[in-house]
This record gives sequence, C-alpha cells and structure tokens, in this order.
Amino acid sequence: MCRWLAYYGSPILLDELLYKPEHSLIDQSKHARMGVETLNGDGVGVGWYPDFATGSDGPVTPAQYRSTGPAWGDMNLRDLAGHVRSPLFFAHIRASTGTPVQQTNSHPFRRGRWLWMHNGAISRFHELKRDLLLSVDAALLPDIQGSTDSELMFYLALSFGLEEDPPAAVARMIRLVEETGAKHGIDNPLQMTVATSDGERVWVFRYSTERKSRSLFFSTAPETLHRLYPENAVFSGLSPETRIVVSEPLGDLPGAWNEVPESTCGIIQPGMDELIPLNPFA
Amino acid sequence: MCRWLAYYGSPILLDELLYKPEHSLIDQSKHARMGVETLNGDGVGVGWYPDFATGSDGPVTPAQYRSTGPAWGDMNLRDLAGHVRSPLFFAHIRASTGTPVQQTNSHPFRRGRWLWMHNGAISRFHELKRDLLLSVDAALLPDIQGSTDSELMFYLALSFGLEEDPPAAVARMIRLVEETGAKHGIDNPLQMTVATSDGERVWVFRYSTERKSRSLFFSTAPETLHRLYPENAVFSGLSPETRIVVSEPLGDLPGAWNEVPESTCGIIQPGMDELIPLNPFA
Amino acid sequence: MCRWLAYYGSPILLDELLYKPEHSLIDQSKHARMGVETLNGDGVGVGWYPDFATGSDGPVTPAQYRSTGPAWGDMNLRDLAGHVRSPLFFAHIRASTGTPVQQTNSHPFRRGRWLWMHNGAISRFHELKRDLLLSVDAALLPDIQGSTDSELMFYLALSFGLEEDPPAAVARMIRLVEETGAKHGIDNPLQMTVATSDGERVWVFRYSTERKSRSLFFSTAPETLHRLYPENAVFSGLSPETRIVVSEPLGDLPGAWNEVPESTCGIIQPGMDELIPLNPFA
Amino acid sequence: MCRWLAYYGSPILLDELLYKPEHSLIDQSKHARMGVETLNGDGVGVGWYPDFATGSDGPVTPAQYRSTGPAWGDMNLRDLAGHVRSPLFFAHIRASTGTPVQQTNSHPFRRGRWLWMHNGAISRFHELKRDLLLSVDAALLPDIQGSTDSELMFYLALSFGLEEDPPAAVARMIRLVEETGAKHGIDNPLQMTVATSDGERVWVFRYSTERKSRSLFFSTAPETLHRLYPENAVFSGLSPETRIVVSEPLGDLPGAWNEVPESTCGIIQPGMDELIPLNPFA
Repeated sequence: MCRWLAYYGSPILLDELLYKPEHSLIDQSKHARMGVETLNGDGVGVGWYPDFATGSDGPVTPAQYRSTGPAWGDMNLRDLAGHVRSPLFFAHIRASTGTPVQQTNSHPFRRGRWLWMHNGAISRFHELKRDLLLSVDAALLPDIQGSTDSELMFYLALSFGLEEDPPAAVARMIRLVEETGAKHGIDNPLQMTVATSDGERVWVFRYSTERKSRSLFFSTAPETLHRLYPENAVFSGLSPETRIVVSEPLGDLPGAWNEVPESTCGIIQPGMDELIPLNPFA
Repeated sequence: MCRWLAYYGSPILLDELLYKPEHSLIDQSKHARMGVETLNGDGVGVGWYPDFATGSDGPVTPAQYRSTGPAWGDMNLRDLAGHVRSPLFFAHIRASTGTPVQQTNSHPFRRGRWLWMHNGAISRFHELKRDLLLSVDAALLPDIQGSTDSELMFYLALSFGLEEDPPAAVARMIRLVEETGAKHGIDNPLQMTVATSDGERVWVFRYSTERKSRSLFFSTAPETLHRLYPENAVFSGLSPETRIVVSEPLGDLPGAWNEVPESTCGIIQPGMDELIPLNPFA
Repeated sequence: MCRWLAYYGSPILLDELLYKPEHSLIDQSKHARMGVETLNGDGVGVGWYPDFATGSDGPVTPAQYRSTGPAWGDMNLRDLAGHVRSPLFFAHIRASTGTPVQQTNSHPFRRGRWLWMHNGAISRFHELKRDLLLSVDAALLPDIQGSTDSELMFYLALSFGLEEDPPAAVARMIRLVEETGAKHGIDNPLQMTVATSDGERVWVFRYSTERKSRSLFFSTAPETLHRLYPENAVFSGLSPETRIVVSEPLGDLPGAWNEVPESTCGIIQPGMDELIPLNPFA
Repeated sequence: MCRWLAYYGSPILLDELLYKPEHSLIDQSKHARMGVETLNGDGVGVGWYPDFATGSDGPVTPAQYRSTGPAWGDMNLRDLAGHVRSPLFFAHIRASTGTPVQQTNSHPFRRGRWLWMHNGAISRFHELKRDLLLSVDAALLPDIQGSTDSELMFYLALSFGLEEDPPAAVARMIRLVEETGAKHGIDNPLQMTVATSDGERVWVFRYSTERKSRSLFFSTAPETLHRLYPENAVFSGLSPETRIVVSEPLGDLPGAWNEVPESTCGIIQPGMDELIPLNPFA
C-alpha cells in the first residue's frame, strides 16, 4: 500500500511534481496524511514517456527507473527528476504489505508500451496467489518478474484484454479477484486505486470490495486554476488538457483537487476526459 | 550458472574456505577456471547452521546471508566470514542466466531447516516455467520468493518429499523437468549440481540430461591429507568426518580432491559417507 | 541523528533486543518516541564481539554488519540477529543529517578492536569539517572511509588516546569540537550520546554544549529486575553484570531503566560499573 | 582503474554507444581488452547534459546517474540509456583500486556545470591523501563526498582554476601530485586519463609520470567515416563536429579511431578541435 501520482499534459520536469510542491510525493514518503500507512519507505519508481520516438517500430515506449531504498534519500531519482522532461509520467512510493523490498516489486510495472501502478492490496494474497496465477494467460505468466499482488493484477488485466479495452479488462480482473476471494471465504478481498497508460491516454480506477476505497484525486483544469490563482505562474504555462491524478492532494490550494468517486474509472485523453462507473458485476 | 561450496565437519570460520585458500570461492567470483562462465558477479550467499540450538522447538535452523553485488567487494560477507563459525555451511556465487539480480534470487534458498543451492540451468526455462509451477504443491507455491529455476527446483523437490527422502525427491524432480522438457521439444533440458541439507547430513547431486554435467568434487579425508601433507597444519585440526564439496577444487594439492561421478548422489553424514547412482528413470 | 543500543553481559542472540521486545530498536526505526526525528530509515548496523578468539594475535576482534536500507526491511539483519550470539554488541539505526546514505556512513565504526557509535550531530559540520580533519593524527586520517561527523569524532578520539584512556580522549575530542565551533561563531556546536568499546568494557557518554543532551538510559541490574518481575523468565538467565544502554527505553517496565545524567560518562565493566562526570573543560 | 567514454555532437540516445556497438562500453565491463584490469564491475555512472535549459539561472546543468553494482546487470541504466538523448555525455565503469564500492565513489563526479571522470590511479594514495587534501581550497574541501583519488584530483583541479582554464588547472594538479609523490619517495605517482566538461566543450587528458599512460582514443570525423563506410547508416546522421573519446575502441572499424598522444590535452569544441602538449613542468 502506497502513494502514487500520474501526470498527463504539457511536458514538464518530473521535479515539478515529485519534489517542488509543498507536500510533494517524495515528501509523502516520510509522512503521508491520508491512508493506512504514514510511511512509504520500501522503494520508489517512476515511469515516463519521452517526447520523442524511441521504439524502433514507431511509437514511444516508456522508461522505468525503480529502486529499493526510501525515496527521500535516492540521489539518482532526485537527479533524474531534475533532468527528465515528459508529457506523461507515473511516480510511485511503496509501503510493502509483506512481499520483499526488491526492484522487481517496485512500481510502475511495464509491458511493451504499457505502464501500471497500484495502491492497495489483495487481502490474504498468499492464499489466493496460486489460483490467480493460474488465470494469467499461459504465454504471459513466465514474464512476471516480482512477487507482488500489484504486478499479478497487471498481468491478469493484460490477460483479459487491457491493451484493447482497459475498463473492461480491469473490471474483469476485479471480478476474478472478488470471485476467487469469495471461493476462499475472504471478506473484502480487494482494495485498489490503479493507474495504467499506453502513452496516449491514462486510465485511473478507484475500487474496493467494501466500497471504502483509498483516496484518489484529479486536478482541476489549468485555466480554471489560473483564474483562481492568477499570481501562480505554474498554471499559466500548461496546456488546458493537463491533468494530475494523485493518492492525496499536493500542496494546499482550495479548488485544485476533485475526488474521483467511489467505484469509478477516469479516462484522461485528448479532448474531453471521462468518468465512468466501474461496475465489475454489471 | 554459478560456483558453490558445501562444508561439513569440525566447526571452522567461514573465512577458512571462502577467502583464505589460493583459488578460494570468493577468488573464483572474478575468474573461475572450470565451467561455462568465468565471471560470477551477480550475487553471493552463505547459509550456515550454528553450533548452538536456535529454533525454539529444539533443532537448529540455518542462517542466510544473501546479497546482490559481486562477492569480491562485499564488506559484510568478508566480516561475517571472519566472525561466524559453523560445522555445516553452504556458500554460492551467482552468474545469472537471465533472471534478475536480486536478493531473493541469490542462493542458498531456505525452507525451515533445509538449505538448497544449485549450479546449472533448466534450458529454455521461460517456456517450461508455468508447467513446472503447476507441479509445485499448492500449499508451497505462494512461498516461492524469487524467479529462478533453482528455487523452483527446490520447491519441486520439497513437493516430492525432500524432507523425507532427499535422493528420491530429487530424482522425481529431475524426472519431471526431463519429461516437461521433452513435452516442449527441448533437448537437454537439465544441467545441475545441487547441494541440500537439513543440518544433519548433506546431499549433493551431479546430473545433466546429456550426461556431461558440470564439475563437482569432494575432499579426501583429513587424516589422509595429513599423511600426504604433514607440514600443513590445517588438516591436523579437523575431525576425520570433515568433508568439503566444491564446483571446482580450491588450492592446488594433488590427491586432495575426488570427482563426484556423473549421475551420482553423494551423502555426507555421521559414519560412512555414500555415493549412490542417480537414475531418475529407474 | 539516530537511535542506538549497547549490550554487555551474558551471551544472547542479538534478536532478544533488536526484534523481540515491544518497542524494540528495529521497531524504533519506524517510529521513535523520543528525540528529534521519529524516523530512522537511513541505514542500520550492528557490531559484535564473538565469544571465541578471532584475532590471530590473541584477543577478540569485533564483527561489523552495516547496510543502507531501512532496518525494518533488512532480511539479512533479521537472520543475523536470530543466529549470532554475543556477550557484547552494538546496534544503531540511522537518520541522516545530510551526509549520504552509504555503508561507510552507517554505524558502528570500527578500528582494530574498537567500536564506536553516535547519536547527535556537530552543528554546521560543513563549516567545521576541514579544521577538525586537520586535528586528526596524520597517520590515521587516510583511514577515514565515510563522510559523517560521527566517524570523524571517532578518529579525533583515537588521535587523542582513546585506546589508552577513553574518558580523557573523548573529553579532549569534545573540547576540540567546542573550541573549533566557537572559533567559527557557532552556538551549541555539539550534541552527542556516544558508545565505544574494546571488547572488555563499554564506555557511554552523554553530552551537549547546551546541556540538553539527547536521552540515554541504562538498565537496572538483572537480579533487581528479577525481584520486581519474578514471572519474567528473561531476567533470570542473565549474569548480574549484564547491562543494556539505549537511546530510549525498550519495553514498558517501570523500574527497568535509569537515565544517564547530563554530562556524564558511564563505564560498564567487570565488577562495579561507574558513572563519572564528563567535564571537558575541567 | 576503469574504462570511460565521452560523447560530444548531435544528440543521440546513450544506448547508441553504451550498449549497441560490438565491444560497447557496457560489454567492456565484463571483459576489457586493453589495460591492467579486464573486469570493471565495481560501479557504473553516466553524466549527461540535456538539450534543454535546466538551471534556473540559465545554462544547462548536467544530470548524474551512478550506481554500485556491475554495469552489465543494471536495469535502470539500460532503461535510461534507451530513453535519454543528449548532445554531450560521459559514461564510466569502475574497477576499484581499494576504496569502497559506493555511489559517491562512482564516476563521473559533478560540481555545478562541471563533470569529471578518471581512469588510472595515484600510487600509494593512502600515503599522499592527507597532503593532497590540504591543498584543496578550504571552501571546497567539505564538499568532497567520496573517498577516491579521482574525486580528490577533481577538487584539486577546481582549486587550481578548472572553471577558468582547464588545461592550466589540470597541469597544476598533476604537478602537485608529482611533487607530493616525490616528497614521499614514491616512483611514478600518477597514471591518468581524464575527461572534464562544462557542457560547452570537452577536455581530455592523457598523462602518467612514467610516460606510459593508459590508452585513449578519439573518433575520426563522421564525414570521413561515412566515406570509408558508406553502407553504415550511423555515420550519415551525425553532425561533422561529433566526436567520441574512449579508453579503448568500440567496434572494429579500421580508420575509425586515433590515439591521443602521450602527455596531451585534447579539446573538443565548436569549430576546430585541438591537441595541445601537456607539460606540467613547463
């Protein structure tokens, strides 16, 4: 269980969100205000899409930097954040719920052009792990590198068509976890906020069996923020489409953050963003 | 694919075998003389049984120290080796065959009172992994922490009764790997030297599908060595039962090392040691 | 600034103090109750004297294990603590005051038979560093491996005769820091609790320029604790000389812990322990 | 003692030089062909200047990524190299000559806009260290973070005016090392190839007391290479000013590499590059 941040919009230095704001994400690694754990010191990661083509076959593939130490002391991350500019990036600080602190367990996870990160947990994951592994596509299973529930959820969603229809694939993954949990007599098997992207759009999900999901917020449009806070130079340089999604608000600006509703999928994309109900059992 | 060493006998400092001998195990991490890889810089580990009771329920449980850097620069290992004395220990230096360099992939592996380490590989492991995972006992599977073929072989052996009859369990594990490999059309699926122990005895195995297994040697009895090399003080202090098993000889003493025959299981134990044929398809 | 623990007495597993007690030292790495920092996640270390001779020239030399991750997730430390028994050991969890998180900056520090660890800081160390370095014995200076004020204090004390007369050498080190601080116009240059040992005795120091030193406690004699808490088996197995010194109390037993007075040196040794005033300017 | 690479010219992915060429720099970490050590597994680092302004005060500041594991297994480095594009970057693989393997000892070193990396050693550095430290500008000394001779050479050059006149400052640094070595009765105190940059130009130096310096090569101009190897697409996309300087040649193209002469400083810059004699005692 963790904290995370997803950025989409005008290219900016990672720094602008990871270190500079009051109550920044890296600051939250030492003392988060919301959620169960106040300490997220079991690894950190960023994933970013560069603003130039990298894949030899055309589209852009994301970069990953993941480490195992606490975010607050990671000199490489601080340097990267001050020198890498991206129009779409994820950042994640980890509080392990039992699995080892190792690079392959740090978020975001990646496959091809896709990134994935998660805050939450599958309850009594140890008991459900084998059944869930068996539901992963046989061709994908050997590529799982770490031992977290989060990466397994990613591979389940991939198995269920994440690359074609993310909301449907995530809903099906949720349903599988719920049903497997029920089979094992586990109450409230799932708790999650998830973000995933293909480099073009960002999908975020807020869901839990008990409908008391961990917090999730998206930012108000930059032009509105600019009207509210005309003296704040940051908001004037960003495209109108720029959005930030976070586990808990950065900074302390009234009107800047809106809660993602319970059991909802948010889609950040060129043109109008969307909030659609997430009903895995519909 | 790796190098390893198993020690059984009079309690000694780990140092005596890990660092002090010419061509010591740690020295081999920079340049091994035998085998496919000459460089074993992808992690190091030791497992040792203390000479005092540690388990609350009586018998002795082994300690593990595993790290991810090259053995030659590991300051903690050097210090441990100079300050830990044990009558039964394993040491292993790793050359990754593709799986990540991380603590949970360093040998030896442990479960309860059992240690396990491996040199070799399952060919095209990626293709066989799912089938092999499905053969692990359902109650054990979730405890697999890393992503190596070596740890999976350990869990297969555990599933097949390692704790009751190690030679039979390892033979059955070998047979499963061979049969699964054949099913997938893989030539020569298995190459291995393995050591395992419960703290009382040590079992070592030398096997490969093609009957060209990686090298394995056991040491001549200390009293014989003492007669051969009366000026060498080391051999006079050791009990007659003391044995060392290694991937490749330490030092350069003619008569000190004997090859474990192809397709053989060696058992080092109180009283007479044994060499028994390892015929998984008998 | 940090937390630490020193143990002297009947050989015990490190575990008994590092992990088992309520509010154990490792537990304090996540949330300490006393002192400035509540989070000590920037490295951990233990130093221990084995209960058998290790130095080739006779006396016992201490072992060091130091790592850079947070103590709470260190699998090697947990294993070591459960398998290493010692009659005299130090343990330390670090909260960096600015110097890098690296193994050579983790405590305890060692030279020959001596261990040293520190909680506190030299104020505006950056400004004083050069002058203090110049006061280190020329033959010792090149052996400084890290970049902390704590290790430099150790080397100053060594330069001033730590191995012959620890209280005098530490007093002279304190005086030098105070005088150098005054020369640079720094108020309250020094804040420290320190422990050092040669394997025979343990010296602990509590001092700060402003006479508001960080907390330090020593344990009541085991036989008294046994009378107070006859149902607690732990106290009956320890020799009467056994002592623990800690930054903040472990557990919650009234009468178990006594504060080391301000500006005091405590000496734990065979026979009567001593508390002597620490007056660097006497 | 180590291997390194400096790139100046058209922005390229770090990948193109770090991983892709036959006998690439990362490949050299496992088996270098030239020089004393064939194994460079004690850390790796890259420093790069982005092609957009980063410093708040205008000019571009370089980024650093440094780690302690072997380059060949560093997943973060591989990802960075495939996603970071730069017109001027340094890369370095380390073989420790005795100082600890830690991030602050990995090259390149940085101060403000300057990068510095080194292959070679100061002989008997331990004996010279104190005298050399005392020659570092008092205001700079406390900023030294690691314990290598290489970083100390950087700080000496900075103290002697690196930022104003690099060849003169490096010559003065060399003279100091030579004279200090002579004072201590050390033959051949210095062996070095060094690269340094301010983001506008790159200065490289080849020097040793005994005039048998470690190898250093610079690349032939891209247009010449293009004429020699018209089928090789790489050379057609690079600006005519593009240059690579390396410890040992990448790839195997006759005519592609020219040796930097003994006791020489090379300057890579807009317009004509220069090779000037390096005569510290002139």
